Amino acid sequence: MQKTQSYLAENKDRFLDELFELLRIPSVSADPNYIPDVNNAAEWIKNHLMKIGADNVVVEKTAGHPIVYGEKIIDPNLPTILVYGHYDVQPADPIELWDSEPFNPIIKKTERHPDGAIFARGSCDDKGQMFMHLKAFEAMMATGELPTNVKFMIEGEEEVGSTNLGIYIKEKKDKLKADVIVISDTGIIDNEIPSITVGLRGLSYVEVEVTGPNRDLHSGLYGGAVANPINVLCEMIDSLTDENGHITIPGFYDKVEVISDEDRAEMAKAPFSQERFNKAIDIKKESGEKGFSTTERTSIRPALDVNGIWGGYTGEGAKTVLPSKAHAKISMRLVPHQKSEEITALFQSHFESIAPDSVRVKVIPMHGGEGVVVPTNFPAYRAASNAMKTTFGKKPIPYRSGGSIPIVALFEEVLGLKSILLGFGLDTDAIHSPNEHYGLFNFYKGIETIPYFFKEFKELNK
Amino acid sequence: MQKTQSYLAENKDRFLDELFELLRIPSVSADPNYIPDVNNAAEWIKNHLMKIGADNVVVEKTAGHPIVYGEKIIDPNLPTILVYGHYDVQPADPIELWDSEPFNPIIKKTERHPDGAIFARGSCDDKGQMFMHLKAFEAMMATGELPTNVKFMIEGEEEVGSTNLGIYIKEKKDKLKADVIVISDTGIIDNEIPSITVGLRGLSYVEVEVTGPNRDLHSGLYGGAVANPINVLCEMIDSLTDENGHITIPGFYDKVEVISDEDRAEMAKAPFSQERFNKAIDIKKESGEKGFSTTERTSIRPALDVNGIWGGYTGEGAKTVLPSKAHAKISMRLVPHQKSEEITALFQSHFESIAPDSVRVKVIPMHGGEGVVVPTNFPAYRAASNAMKTTFGKKPIPYRSGGSIPIVALFEEVLGLKSILLGFGLDTDAIHSPNEHYGLFNFYKGIETIPYFFKEFKELNK
Repeated sequence: MQKTQSYLAENKDRFLDELFELLRIPSVSADPNYIPDVNNAAEWIKNHLMKIGADNVVVEKTAGHPIVYGEKIIDPNLPTILVYGHYDVQPADPIELWDSEPFNPIIKKTERHPDGAIFARGSCDDKGQMFMHLKAFEAMMATGELPTNVKFMIEGEEEVGSTNLGIYIKEKKDKLKADVIVISDTGIIDNEIPSITVGLRGLSYVEVEVTGPNRDLHSGLYGGAVANPINVLCEMIDSLTDENGHITIPGFYDKVEVISDEDRAEMAKAPFSQERFNKAIDIKKESGEKGFSTTERTSIRPALDVNGIWGGYTGEGAKTVLPSKAHAKISMRLVPHQKSEEITALFQSHFESIAPDSVRVKVIPMHGGEGVVVPTNFPAYRAASNAMKTTFGKKPIPYRSGGSIPIVALFEEVLGLKSILLGFGLDTDAIHSPNEHYGLFNFYKGIETIPYFFKEFKELNK
Repeated sequence: MQKTQSYLAENKDRFLDELFELLRIPSVSADPNYIPDVNNAAEWIKNHLMKIGADNVVVEKTAGHPIVYGEKIIDPNLPTILVYGHYDVQPADPIELWDSEPFNPIIKKTERHPDGAIFARGSCDDKGQMFMHLKAFEAMMATGELPTNVKFMIEGEEEVGSTNLGIYIKEKKDKLKADVIVISDTGIIDNEIPSITVGLRGLSYVEVEVTGPNRDLHSGLYGGAVANPINVLCEMIDSLTDENGHITIPGFYDKVEVISDEDRAEMAKAPFSQERFNKAIDIKKESGEKGFSTTERTSIRPALDVNGIWGGYTGEGAKTVLPSKAHAKISMRLVPHQKSEEITALFQSHFESIAPDSVRVKVIPMHGGEGVVVPTNFPAYRAASNAMKTTFGKKPIPYRSGGSIPIVALFEEVLGLKSILLGFGLDTDAIHSPNEHYGLFNFYKGIETIPYFFKEFKELNK
């Protein structure tokens, strides 16, 4: 891979310019106002894939946002790597908290990125990481060093649940035949501590509505004698966890994977600084389920978070209203063996059962997905581990992440393919937040590592 | 008062047209966008007062919205009645829940208003009720039957705390000299059950902010290990009341007036149907402090209500955010002897003390006011009682309302004047809510009653 690495070094600056171009397209999948931009981003990727040498490149229409497909089959007898990524991004809100414009990328240094980082929505999640694969492919093609077949599947609905990708992969099983899927949409522990994500949590996401009186009431005339749906919602939410941080929904923990003390001890070896964690997000004290460490709380244990709440008067000043309704969006992160649909059903029946007589409640399931565990003894993991050892100079640590990529479980179910999670972000990169960024070190290190992964994967599949 | 009553009967339709004109002015005091309308409403009242015979009519500027003043001094030796009312209205939001346009009054029949009611924002609170006094005055002036001196003070900030009226009355103590204040901004139990409000609750209104991490986090990567400010806010709010509906703030009940069993038995004689109460607002079951009836819960007992709550993602769809902040507006209704400022301070120190280490909280006092008890043995009460007996054919029942008119306590403190609460609304008139209305029966019955009140008050002050 010497020629490839030289090519990469020679073209660094251009790669960044190209990525900036893609980051300037505000391809926000959640908001219908951005549909033209989402389509532009898909077209941009199609054109780019064609330019760098992919064949059969096509923008595949779906009921929602399109999927870009492209491939390079150099020899049907060689292994095939399917690259998955997404070109859609989270909304930039709250926009007033950004220090620079979310769709006008700039480079700034940070404590963890002393060489500079690219600040823009999507820089880390996932345009910047997905684009590393395009650049690695370009280099291998240009130098004649591509060692395997490759297929690209870049979707536009990851941030809104990948519903249409789920349909697409069922329809295109043959076209998507491969030996492994590689995804760069996760992170490493630190730039000095390479790591590979070997677990993702599942997700159950619901919206709840509590209705008290049939109209907003004057809180003076009625207050004290009529159940206030906000107070009731707070009480119900509070009751979903106990004083030890355990979730109280009956049956919730029944299928939670029990991790042996040995495995927990092994996991605890991964470097982690509670002090740095707290400082980075400016909290005095961490919080969570009793008996588990921060790392465990975000990986091997489920969690319940209110993602949004609203009700009554929320404008300036004071309005003395006893509102008719209160709402919340609640999500549960799940661990292996917990089934998203089952957990959603458990939540729904429990939440309905704890509602007092004085209100009515409605639970609306939103979306969900299953957790994932990546085995550390299959060829793709070993290939990734060897590749990182080459580029970082140390063997990566396997670790579990708290996030969810629901489509990973579906890939295995529908396509029968395991995914290798070869991400290069840091936990402080503020994905889904204002001032999202992606380190230049990480961008280039990713591009550098991917060709070695291809090479190692071919070797191990001989 | 025979000539006055004939005059009233002859001019009924015109009175309604005039009120409609006033109701069409959207004088929303809380929203700066409506400043021109608020000023138009003040001008309209000034012009109207001049037209119907008041002297020295003036729109008094304040640091906020203006106060309209006018008077008729027929004999310095006669008693003087100071009429207080307000021309500002609550915002019409949520506007989509109105069945007709909030600032385009129409007449519709309702179950409790079989003769029709005026549907418009401000029809009951308080334009329609305030306007009754202008029409009664007009009739007494036109027929030469005005029995006392009268002063009008009509403000534009009642719905936002009457801050500038408080300053105004301190500056104009001499100008506002009177024997009693009469206010029509409350209600009667039913059109068949006349009543006079002899108690109002006080108010402490605060806004709270709970801050967790310094930015919105990805709930997958952090969920379970970082205190979620929404979950914490819900827990804190839930803890403010216990399972018996008692407020848990230490010292909160220390000064609450203890009502004797005898007085409670007397109060319980006021007609009240729990079934009709529940049906009117479509709730299956009432709720509140254990050991007290619905009537007691909204009159002699304090209450705590969340008036608004917000935090995290509240748009369409699902965003997996662990937010940095959560907010709520919380108000407490107070009973006699509880001091608003003391209760606000108790709330603040308690709320700060229960915050877990994992978050920071801020309590912002918004506004407040003291409760009021009107004695039933002073001349104005007896005058009002006699007047209502004449027009309704039955003696009114004294009862306490759960609402607050913070300025009433201030009138007593600054001007040394008691207020008589001669209101004619019904609890189902949806004040502060969509589809606010005011019965035609009530509007005309009020206009009819007021001149008798003037006459009786003069007699009792001889």
